[in-house]
Amino acid sequence: METSESKFHDECAIFGIYRHPEAANVTYLGLYAQQHRGQESSGIVSSDGSDHHIHLGMGLVADVFKREIIEKLHGNMAIGHNRYSTTGASKLMNAQPLAIEYSAGYLAIAHNGNLVNASTVRAELEDIGSIFRSTMDTEVISHLIAKSSENTLFSRVVDALHQARGAYSLLVMNEDEMIAVRDPKGFRPLVMGKLDGATVFASETCAFDLIGATFERDLKPGELVHVTSDGVRSHFPFPPKKSCQCVFEFIYFARPDSNIFGRSVHEVRKNFGKALALELPVEADMVIPVPDSGVPAAMGYAEKSGIPFDMGLIRNHYIGRTFIEPESRIRHFGVKLKLNPIRSLIEGKKVVVVDDSIVRGTTCKKIIGMVRSAGAKEVHMRISSPPTTHPCFYGIDTPTKEELIASNMTVEETRKFIEADSLAYLTQEKMLSIFGDEAVDFCTACFDGNYPIKRFDMDIVQAELFDSIRK
Amino acid sequence: METSESKFHDECAIFGIYRHPEAANVTYLGLYAQQHRGQESSGIVSSDGSDHHIHLGMGLVADVFKREIIEKLHGNMAIGHNRYSTTGASKLMNAQPLAIEYSAGYLAIAHNGNLVNASTVRAELEDIGSIFRSTMDTEVISHLIAKSSENTLFSRVVDALHQARGAYSLLVMNEDEMIAVRDPKGFRPLVMGKLDGATVFASETCAFDLIGATFERDLKPGELVHVTSDGVRSHFPFPPKKSCQCVFEFIYFARPDSNIFGRSVHEVRKNFGKALALELPVEADMVIPVPDSGVPAAMGYAEKSGIPFDMGLIRNHYIGRTFIEPESRIRHFGVKLKLNPIRSLIEGKKVVVVDDSIVRGTTCKKIIGMVRSAGAKEVHMRISSPPTTHPCFYGIDTPTKEELIASNMTVEETRKFIEADSLAYLTQEKMLSIFGDEAVDFCTACFDGNYPIKRFDMDIVQAELFDSIRK
Amino acid sequence: METSESKFHDECAIFGIYRHPEAANVTYLGLYAQQHRGQESSGIVSSDGSDHHIHLGMGLVADVFKREIIEKLHGNMAIGHNRYSTTGASKLMNAQPLAIEYSAGYLAIAHNGNLVNASTVRAELEDIGSIFRSTMDTEVISHLIAKSSENTLFSRVVDALHQARGAYSLLVMNEDEMIAVRDPKGFRPLVMGKLDGATVFASETCAFDLIGATFERDLKPGELVHVTSDGVRSHFPFPPKKSCQCVFEFIYFARPDSNIFGRSVHEVRKNFGKALALELPVEADMVIPVPDSGVPAAMGYAEKSGIPFDMGLIRNHYIGRTFIEPESRIRHFGVKLKLNPIRSLIEGKKVVVVDDSIVRGTTCKKIIGMVRSAGAKEVHMRISSPPTTHPCFYGIDTPTKEELIASNMTVEETRKFIEADSLAYLTQEKMLSIFGDEAVDFCTACFDGNYPIKRFDMDIVQAELFDSIRK
Amino acid sequence: METSESKFHDECAIFGIYRHPEAANVTYLGLYAQQHRGQESSGIVSSDGSDHHIHLGMGLVADVFKREIIEKLHGNMAIGHNRYSTTGASKLMNAQPLAIEYSAGYLAIAHNGNLVNASTVRAELEDIGSIFRSTMDTEVISHLIAKSSENTLFSRVVDALHQARGAYSLLVMNEDEMIAVRDPKGFRPLVMGKLDGATVFASETCAFDLIGATFERDLKPGELVHVTSDGVRSHFPFPPKKSCQCVFEFIYFARPDSNIFGRSVHEVRKNFGKALALELPVEADMVIPVPDSGVPAAMGYAEKSGIPFDMGLIRNHYIGRTFIEPESRIRHFGVKLKLNPIRSLIEGKKVVVVDDSIVRGTTCKKIIGMVRSAGAKEVHMRISSPPTTHPCFYGIDTPTKEELIASNMTVEETRKFIEADSLAYLTQEKMLSIFGDEAVDFCTACFDGNYPIKRFDMDIVQAELFDSIRK
Repeated sequence: METSESKFHDECAIFGIYRHPEAANVTYLGLYAQQHRGQESSGIVSSDGSDHHIHLGMGLVADVFKREIIEKLHGNMAIGHNRYSTTGASKLMNAQPLAIEYSAGYLAIAHNGNLVNASTVRAELEDIGSIFRSTMDTEVISHLIAKSSENTLFSRVVDALHQARGAYSLLVMNEDEMIAVRDPKGFRPLVMGKLDGATVFASETCAFDLIGATFERDLKPGELVHVTSDGVRSHFPFPPKKSCQCVFEFIYFARPDSNIFGRSVHEVRKNFGKALALELPVEADMVIPVPDSGVPAAMGYAEKSGIPFDMGLIRNHYIGRTFIEPESRIRHFGVKLKLNPIRSLIEGKKVVVVDDSIVRGTTCKKIIGMVRSAGAKEVHMRISSPPTTHPCFYGIDTPTKEELIASNMTVEETRKFIEADSLAYLTQEKMLSIFGDEAVDFCTACFDGNYPIKRFDMDIVQAELFDSIRK
Repeated sequence: METSESKFHDECAIFGIYRHPEAANVTYLGLYAQQHRGQESSGIVSSDGSDHHIHLGMGLVADVFKREIIEKLHGNMAIGHNRYSTTGASKLMNAQPLAIEYSAGYLAIAHNGNLVNASTVRAELEDIGSIFRSTMDTEVISHLIAKSSENTLFSRVVDALHQARGAYSLLVMNEDEMIAVRDPKGFRPLVMGKLDGATVFASETCAFDLIGATFERDLKPGELVHVTSDGVRSHFPFPPKKSCQCVFEFIYFARPDSNIFGRSVHEVRKNFGKALALELPVEADMVIPVPDSGVPAAMGYAEKSGIPFDMGLIRNHYIGRTFIEPESRIRHFGVKLKLNPIRSLIEGKKVVVVDDSIVRGTTCKKIIGMVRSAGAKEVHMRISSPPTTHPCFYGIDTPTKEELIASNMTVEETRKFIEADSLAYLTQEKMLSIFGDEAVDFCTACFDGNYPIKRFDMDIVQAELFDSIRK
Repeated sequence: METSESKFHDECAIFGIYRHPEAANVTYLGLYAQQHRGQESSGIVSSDGSDHHIHLGMGLVADVFKREIIEKLHGNMAIGHNRYSTTGASKLMNAQPLAIEYSAGYLAIAHNGNLVNASTVRAELEDIGSIFRSTMDTEVISHLIAKSSENTLFSRVVDALHQARGAYSLLVMNEDEMIAVRDPKGFRPLVMGKLDGATVFASETCAFDLIGATFERDLKPGELVHVTSDGVRSHFPFPPKKSCQCVFEFIYFARPDSNIFGRSVHEVRKNFGKALALELPVEADMVIPVPDSGVPAAMGYAEKSGIPFDMGLIRNHYIGRTFIEPESRIRHFGVKLKLNPIRSLIEGKKVVVVDDSIVRGTTCKKIIGMVRSAGAKEVHMRISSPPTTHPCFYGIDTPTKEELIASNMTVEETRKFIEADSLAYLTQEKMLSIFGDEAVDFCTACFDGNYPIKRFDMDIVQAELFDSIRK
Repeated sequence: METSESKFHDECAIFGIYRHPEAANVTYLGLYAQQHRGQESSGIVSSDGSDHHIHLGMGLVADVFKREIIEKLHGNMAIGHNRYSTTGASKLMNAQPLAIEYSAGYLAIAHNGNLVNASTVRAELEDIGSIFRSTMDTEVISHLIAKSSENTLFSRVVDALHQARGAYSLLVMNEDEMIAVRDPKGFRPLVMGKLDGATVFASETCAFDLIGATFERDLKPGELVHVTSDGVRSHFPFPPKKSCQCVFEFIYFARPDSNIFGRSVHEVRKNFGKALALELPVEADMVIPVPDSGVPAAMGYAEKSGIPFDMGLIRNHYIGRTFIEPESRIRHFGVKLKLNPIRSLIEGKKVVVVDDSIVRGTTCKKIIGMVRSAGAKEVHMRISSPPTTHPCFYGIDTPTKEELIASNMTVEETRKFIEADSLAYLTQEKMLSIFGDEAVDFCTACFDGNYPIKRFDMDIVQAELFDSIRK
C-alpha cells in the first residue's frame, strides 16, 4: 500500500543535473518520477552561472510547478527535492532545496537522510550565536559549510561532513559546481547517469527512465562526486566504514522499476516472496497481494508455493485527495477507500494475503476483516519482511516503539489482534540470504535494534519524534 | 490503461438513494467509487420532500464536493452523476443530474447512455418551440417527460421513453419518488441494493462495496423500478426485446471488482485472457500486462499458456494532473509518464504483452517500443478483444472509423504499424463463448457493425461526433 | 456605501458590441467598468458568424475571465452580463447571458430588469410542456422568442416582448444580428455608442469611457435598435406609453461618472443635496458624507447650506473579500470594516451626515453610533431621497415592506431608532423638481406605491421574494 | 492614488498584542486595517507560553488568513506584519514576522524600516560563518540578537540595536515577553494602546479604531517598551538624538483617519493643501483631487483659494485584481482602469488638479491628458509636497535619482512633460511651517538630500536597489 498514510514516511527524493539546456525542466521530470518518495513539498533551485533561482511549494510536483514557473528557473544547472507528506502550510520553511547566502556566496542543498547528531551540533551552533529558521538538519549542514575555514566549496563540504554523523545523500550546488555525496555507511541510495552528455543524479533510477538518461552507477558509500567545468571527479575523503544500506528501500520505499544498491527492486521483492513461501507453509487456494507494494512478493510467494496468484484486492486510483467521511460508520471505511476485494474470486476460498510490512497492525486488521467479509474461508497473513520492532534514526519516520505492534506483541498476539488464521514474517536470516555475500552491507536496525551509528543526541531526537507524532 | 486519454470515453456513472438520513453523503461516496466512469464533471441533486438542492461542478468528485457543500444538500433522497473527461470549463451546462421545473413541479434526471434519435426528437421539439440550453440528450428526455399528457411521474416517464430510442440507464427523481430505468435492450448496466433499509441504485456494484450496501440484483433490460413511500415496484412497460448488453463494459470500462450483467468483471476478463492464449500460440518467456485494464486477461493468458506472468510495466500513480513537457523530445514521452518497464525483468526475454484493446494504435506502438528499449528480444502483442472496427452509438465515445486502426488496416498491417513481432486479437466467437447461452444477449456492433437499433439520426450524430472530435 | 450588502441589489449590467475585431476583450472591459451593477456572476457570449462561444462564472469580472478564456471567445460580436451578488455556487444556472438553441438556431440574451408577469407566463409555458432550468425571467423571454410563429429574429423578439410586461433592457444576439431593447416605460437605462466604427451598447456610459467609445445617445423607452450588416435601424413597435425611468439609478445605483437618462449622475446627486439642504435646516459645524454614494449629495448640501464639507468617514478599500470576525463583540464591527471616522475632525462638532437612502436602518444606526463615539456633539442625519416605503418590482431587489423601516415607522420613530439628533429626507416633490418638465418621466413607486404596471403575478413574485430573503 | 503601483512602496505595517484571549484574531484585524501599508505578504506569529505558531503567506491579509488558520495560531500573544506589494511567489522567504530558534530559545521579529548598515553588518556576520536565507535586514537584526553575549531578551535586543543604524520600528516577541522599539531618530511611526486591558502596538492608530482599542500614545524616538507579566516599562537605552520623523507618512503613506507623530493625518494633509493654495495662485473654476490621497489637500486648497471643490475624477473600486488588457491601444488605458473623469463637470472649465506627489511623471501626464479629453479648458497641476529629488534609504522604496522626474527636470520642464497649463509644488518651507516648532523633528532627505544618517553601505544598498528595480 505504497501511498498509505499509515506506513512509514520521512523519505525524500533528490535530483540534480549539471550543464543541460533544460536543467529546470528535466529536474521537474526527475522529481515527478520520484513523487512516491515525498508528497508534502517540492522545490527546485537553478543556477545560470551568476544568479540562482528558486521555487518551493507545498504539494505534489505537478501542482507546485507550472510552466511559467519552470521558465523562470533559468540556467543549465539545477537541483530538486521532494519531501514526505504531512499537513501544515506553514511548513514551507522546511521545504528543500535549502538556499543560503554566506561569506563565499550562494549555496543550495538537497538532502535525503537524517543526521543523528543534528540536535547536538545545532545546540553547539546556537551557543556560538547561530540562528535557525527551520527544523531541518539540512540547515545544520549549511551552517557547518558556512562556518568552515576552508577555501573551496569542495573542502568546505568535506570539512562540514566530518562533523555530521548519520544518514545523508546530498546534492550541493553553487554557481558553477555540483557535489553529490553518499554518507560513509551509504544508508540512502544515490545514483548517477548521463543525459545528452550532462551529468545527472537521482535517488532512484526510475527518474532516469522517464527523462531518457543512461544509468551509470550507484555512488559508493562515502563517495563525493565533484562536477565542475573540468569534468567529473570521484573522491573518498572519509575513512572507509562498513556499509549499512537501508534494506527497507527494497521492502517498501523504492519504486519496483528502480535499481538501487546495484539491484532490481522488483526482483529483490519477488525473491523475498519466494523465501517467505518457506515460512510456515499453508494449504490455500489463492495468494493475493496488498497492492501495490505487496505485488512482487506475492508473485514470488505464489511461484514458490505453487498456490495460484490473483489480484483479489483492487486499488482505487483516485485516492490521495480530500475526502468527506459519512457520519454513519461504515465497516473498514478508511481501507475501503483504497482497496476493494473481489468477492466472486475470494468467496469460499482459503486465502494467503501478502503485504510488505506491519506497522501498527490496524490497517492490516481492516484488510483481513474486509477479505473475510468478502467470503474468505481462511485468511493467512504473510509479511515479506521481519517484524519491525525498532524505530529508524537514519531517515525513515517510523513510529515509536510504543506504537510498533511487533515491539509490543508476540507474533501469536499480533495474529490474534489482526484476526488472521495464521501469520508469518520473513525471517531476517532468510531476508538477508537474498543478498548473498552483500548481506553484511545492510542496516537491519529496525528489525534487531543493532544501530550502526551511536545515537549522539538520541534523547533529543526521540523527544522530537514523540512530539512530531503527538502533533 | 484505465485512465488513458487515448482510449474510449463518454461513459458515465449514476447513483441514487431513496430515504436515507445521509443521502447526499452516501451519493458522494457512490460517485467516488465510480470515478473511473467519468472524470469531467460531477453533480448531486437531493430532495428534502419539498425543496430540491443541487450542486454541479467540473472535475473529480473529491474536488467538486466539499463538506460544506454536502451539508447543504439536505434531504433523504439524492441522485448523482459522473461525466466523462473532456476539456472546456464552459461545459458546465452539460453536467448532470439535469434539474428542471415544469408544469408538474421539479424533476431531476441522471442518465448513462445515448439516444440514437436524440437529434430527430430534438428537432421536432424545437419545431414546436422548445429551447435547449445544453447538448445533452438528457435534456431531450426531460422535454418529453414535461410534454407528456400523463398525470403521474411514472406514466410521464413511460410515455417519454416510448419516444426515446437507444441506450439509457436512468435515474429520475421528484420530491418523493424515484424511478430507475434500464432501456429495453439493456445496453448499459444498472444495479440495485439496500443500505440500512434504503433502496440504492448504481451503475456498478463497486459503489455498493464502498458504502457497505448489499447488492440485490441487476435491473433487467426494459425494467422500471418505481420507489415510493409505499415501497419498491417493478414494471415492464415496454414490449420485450432481445438484450444487447455492452460487452465493452467487460473488456474495458467497469472496475474489475464490480459485478455487472450478473457476472464478475475480473473473472470475465481472466477468461478472455485464457481464451486469448489459444489464438496464435507463441513461445515466450513472460506474459506482462498493460496495467491496469490488461492485468486480469494477462493472468488468464499466463495460466492457460503456462508462460510465467510478471508485472513488467509499472504504472505511475500520480498521473492525471497537469504536466509540463520538456522541449527536447524524449522517446515515448507521453507513455513514459504513465508506464515504465522493468529492464532487469525484460532484458533478453521473449515477451507477450497483453492489453484489452487497440484504438488508434499509437499508444500500443509506444508501449512496444518502450518494452523493446528495455531489452526485450521479441514482443508479441495480444489483445483480449476482437478488432474494434466500428464506432459505438450507444453511449461510448469511440473515434470515427477513419481513426480506428482496425477499420483501416488488416491485422498484419497493424502488426507492422505497432512494430510487434506478432499480433493476435481474441476472436469474437471465442469472446462470446465465455458467456455460454447468454452470448446472444450482448451487443457486438463495435466489432462487426451489426447495430441492434436503427440509427434514426445517424448522419446528425456522426456529424456531431466528427465535430466534437475536431474540437 | 456602494458595495454594502445591506442595501438594494438585483441590478445588473449589460454590454454588447457588433463587429469589432476584439469583441470579447472589449466586452470584458465594458463589464469591468460596470462591476458596481453586479458582483455575483459574469458572462460573455461571442459569435464568429457561425459558432457561438460562451463563458460564465461566479464572481467578479476580473476573476471569471482570464486571458486564455477571452482568447477562446472568438468572433467580432459579443454580449456580456454582470449579475448582482448573492451566495451559492450552484447559482451558475442563473448566470447570464442565457444561450439557447431552438428551431431557428442559436440565440443569446442579456437582460437587466424584471418582468412582472414572469410567473404567469412561465406557468402558461409549463402548461404546454415547457421546462425551465433556472429561475431567471430571461429564460421566460427565450421561450417566448422560440415559440413565436414569426420568421425573423427581429419579429420573433417583438412578438415575444408583446407578451412580456415589466422592466427590461435587453441585448439579443444570433450569429449575425444584434438587437437592443428598452421596454416601453424605459425603467432601466441603456445607452449606445461607437468604437472604431463598431456599434456598442451598455447600461451606463462609464463603460464607454473605459474602452474609449463615443457616447451617441440613450435608447428611448420602447425602442428596439436592430444592428445587422446593413447597418443600424431604430424601431418603435410598441404603442407609446408614459415613461417610468428608475429614479433610484440616480440616487444609488449608477456610477457618478456615468450619464444615464440624458443626465450626469454626479450632477443630479449634487442637486439632490442642494435641495436637501432646504429640508429642516440645522446649525452645524460640518457636513460629512457616507462614502461613496453620499459624497455628491453631501457636497451639494454643504454648498447650499454654507456648512463646511469634510471627509469625516474614511472608507477601507480592501472590503469585499472573505473576512474573519472575532468572537469578542466589537461595537459597530460590521460598519467599522468599511468605514472609520476621523476623530480629530469630528470631536466636539455638530455634524450633518448625508447618505443616499435608508433601508432597514440598522447600518445607519451603526454609522451614527460610530460618529458619536468619535466625539460628535450632535449628529444630524440627512437622506438625499424620500423615505423608501415600497418594494420595487422592476428590477431592484428591495426588502419587503416588513423590513423597510420607513414603511413601519414615522420619521420621528426612525430618528429615535437610529439615535440621530435630527433626521430629514428629501421630499419627493423636491427630488422631482430637479428634473423640471421631465419629472413625469420617472417611476417613484418605491416612495409612494404608485406602481406604473399592474402586478400580474404579484402574489407569486412576493412569495418568491419572501422566499429568497428567507434563504 | 493610494494603491497605485507607480508610487513609492517598501513601507510595512506591524501589529502586536500582549495577553489577550483572541490574540491572533485581533492581530489579523490589526493587519487588515493597515492593509494599505503592504499588500505583498502577510504573517502572524503567536505564542501560547511554550510553543510558537506561525503562518505566512503571499497576498492580502484576508486571503492569507482563513478561519481555520487563525484557530491554529494559539496563545495570548501575537505579532503580525504586512509587506509591500511586489511580484514573485518565491519571495515567501522574505515574508515577516521572522521566526528563529537560537541559543536562548525562540524569537519572532516584525520590522518596519530599513537599516543603512545592513550590508556591512551582514558581510561581517557572513565572515564569521553566518548564513542568510533571505534578503531582509530583519534577518540581520535576528543574528545580532542571537550573537549577543547578554543574558536577557531585553539586553540582547538593546545590544543588537546598538550595532544597527537606520530606520526601524520593531516588535520582538519570545514566549512571554514583547518588546516594541522605535529607532533613536524615530523615522517610522509606532503607537501603543489598550484593548480589554491588553497592551497593543501598531504602526497607525487606524488599527486601534477597528479593534476598538484605546490609543495611549506614540512611542518616542529611541524608546523601548518592554511588556512582561510584571507590566509595561519604558526605556531609553540609546543616547538622545535629533528626531527625523518621515514627513512622507503625512504626504502619502498613512491612512487619513490615523494619528501618527501626534497629529491627525487628514488635518495635516488639509493644511498642506491650504498652504499649497498660496503657491502660484491661479484663476480657476474648480479644484479636483486625484483620489484618494489627494482629497484632503484638494479640500484645503479649495477652502483657502475659494475655488469650488468637486470630485471630478471617480475611482474604480475593483482595481487591484488581475486584468486583461486589449491589444488595440486605448488612450491613458492604465490610468482609466483606476480613474474616470466626469465630463459634465469638467467640460469647458479651468481645473486645478491636486495630487500628493509626482514620482516619474508618467501617471500624472496621463491624468492630465484624461482631464483634458473630458473637456477641461485649462489644467493646473498642484502638488501638496515639494519636488521629490532624492531616494529614501529609511524604509521607502523610491526609484533611483535617474527615475525621479524632479531630479532630472526643472519645474518648467516637468510642466511641459506632463502637459499642464501650470505646475506648482508646495515648498519645503511652507510644508514644514505646518508643524510649527516641531518642524525640526522631520526628515526631508527626499526633498533636499540632507540624509540624517551617514550611509554606511550606501553603495551596496544602491546597487541592490538598482538591481531590484531592474527586476
